[in-house]
Amino acid sequence: MIQEIPAQSLDPNEFIADRVSEIAGTVAGGTAVNALSGGVDSSVVTMLGHRALGHRLKTVFVENGLMREGEPERVIGLFHDLGVPVEIVDAREEFFRALAGISDPEEKREAVTQTFYRHVFARVVRESGARFLLQGTILTDIDETVAGIKRQHNVFEQLGIDPQAAFGYRILEPLVRLRKDGVRKVGEALGLPAEVFKRIPFPGPALAARVVGEATPARIEAVRKATAVVEKMLAGTGAFQYLAILHEDRMTGIQAGKRDFGLQIEVRCWDSLDARVAKPTRVPFEILEAIAASIVETVPGVVSVTYNIATKPPSTIEAV
Amino acid sequence: MIQEIPAQSLDPNEFIADRVSEIAGTVAGGTAVNALSGGVDSSVVTMLGHRALGHRLKTVFVENGLMREGEPERVIGLFHDLGVPVEIVDAREEFFRALAGISDPEEKREAVTQTFYRHVFARVVRESGARFLLQGTILTDIDETVAGIKRQHNVFEQLGIDPQAAFGYRILEPLVRLRKDGVRKVGEALGLPAEVFKRIPFPGPALAARVVGEATPARIEAVRKATAVVEKMLAGTGAFQYLAILHEDRMTGIQAGKRDFGLQIEVRCWDSLDARVAKPTRVPFEILEAIAASIVETVPGVVSVTYNIATKPPSTIEAV
Repeated sequence: MIQEIPAQSLDPNEFIADRVSEIAGTVAGGTAVNALSGGVDSSVVTMLGHRALGHRLKTVFVENGLMREGEPERVIGLFHDLGVPVEIVDAREEFFRALAGISDPEEKREAVTQTFYRHVFARVVRESGARFLLQGTILTDIDETVAGIKRQHNVFEQLGIDPQAAFGYRILEPLVRLRKDGVRKVGEALGLPAEVFKRIPFPGPALAARVVGEATPARIEAVRKATAVVEKMLAGTGAFQYLAILHEDRMTGIQAGKRDFGLQIEVRCWDSLDARVAKPTRVPFEILEAIAASIVETVPGVVSVTYNIATKPPSTIEAV
Repeated sequence: MIQEIPAQSLDPNEFIADRVSEIAGTVAGGTAVNALSGGVDSSVVTMLGHRALGHRLKTVFVENGLMREGEPERVIGLFHDLGVPVEIVDAREEFFRALAGISDPEEKREAVTQTFYRHVFARVVRESGARFLLQGTILTDIDETVAGIKRQHNVFEQLGIDPQAAFGYRILEPLVRLRKDGVRKVGEALGLPAEVFKRIPFPGPALAARVVGEATPARIEAVRKATAVVEKMLAGTGAFQYLAILHEDRMTGIQAGKRDFGLQIEVRCWDSLDARVAKPTRVPFEILEAIAASIVETVPGVVSVTYNIATKPPSTIEAV
């Protein structure tokens, strides 16, 4: 049983000092490696690791082809400005090969997980010679995995898998006693810019979790364009998370005056404190209509756009 | 080219007198038959035919298993009160047999059309000995068929099919110069109760048009329950049309604390004058949230509910 540190009783500077010394002590004189996705969890872990280990931490950004628009450039540039070197690994073909023909949500998550840990990142770790992997698992990930709600990508130890035996390295999870609101407080105290520590959550399997059905390059490109519209137009809501989902169902629509079975994009925007429960944000209709119009204009083939109005539970934040 | 009578220049009493004498003249001393679905178009046609022909009009209500909750009882009772006898034909098994295994929207429409015209209704007409069929086709149906937007169920003549040769009867379409707003004016003038002439449109293939994918009895029952919720809770909006759609895509959700790939229901509510163009109604979020909660509670297996925010075009009113 992991003991939670609730955000309201969290002293972020004490937390940072404790984790930095813990990481430094565990890694000792060795080296560690971590993957930066650009999300708040992995950004905070990168900063903690950098403070603890300096140049003995190798941070990689794996370009898996499933990222949001402009994401690799944004993340690299931002950490460059913070003095943290980040290496890009282009693994797009490897991920799409692994995802080809897979529609089942669990199999998709599994394909992304396996490609990342067993292949791409394992190769990075092997070549780096590092024995430690820093990872941004938070308490909600573990709760949901234990409860059987979602198979998270970063929970080997909790699932009874020994990563040292299975993958050849030991995993350190400095954020595992926090929930999202706690991680944000730590990010702020670490001096990360607001755009990072206030960043809305983004799932491990990235845009592969945002298409129902097969995650082909074309379908990922469609949901990437829709995601860019949604993130731009809902940034001002202050909502906990907002996202676009490409459905597999085809809908009757009209294109150039003729019937067309087109695509449907679902928009979700959640009010939530920690992702355990959530309610749809009451986004003004002017904004919802503008989002729909912009998605129709931006994403070829879209004829229908919906907004999720159910709560979590019984819904989940993500659709896959 | 059919000449439109716009609602604003329509004199409903003159229109009724003209159509009644036309029908009486064409059918002469013979008999006619018509199918009443309970929608505004077929209700108005039933009243026109009853005025023109009295007992020489045989009106049947085909129970195809695809109707809304309580619909057969409601329609029969209502016309009984108006002094118009209606006969029920139970054809549920025949329709579900024809729909089994079919997912393509056009094939579903075709299966419903063929089962209705070639089998069930053709049998009714044959057994009745009638040579004339009264039908509620309106101008929008023809426009959309000609434009290739939608294959309507009641457009044989416009498609170049001779119903007399193909089906053994002649089709009369007294409403073909009107759009929906004109039909409503006529319905009011005919003395139909507001619940009928103000009734929101409902598609020919009924609830089969409200499920994406196969229209099995269980899936129709799910969308029937969702439709009852939506119609009850949106009746006060004054919207042109509102509906529930059962998707085929499965969504991740939480049922009894465990992950579950559940059903998604999409709610649509349209502001429109004549169905040619439409905008989503700005339904207050309190109502949208109450609809979602009620659907989740009422329809087993539903974990997600959405509201359509796109316009027509590029969407259509219905999804199939």
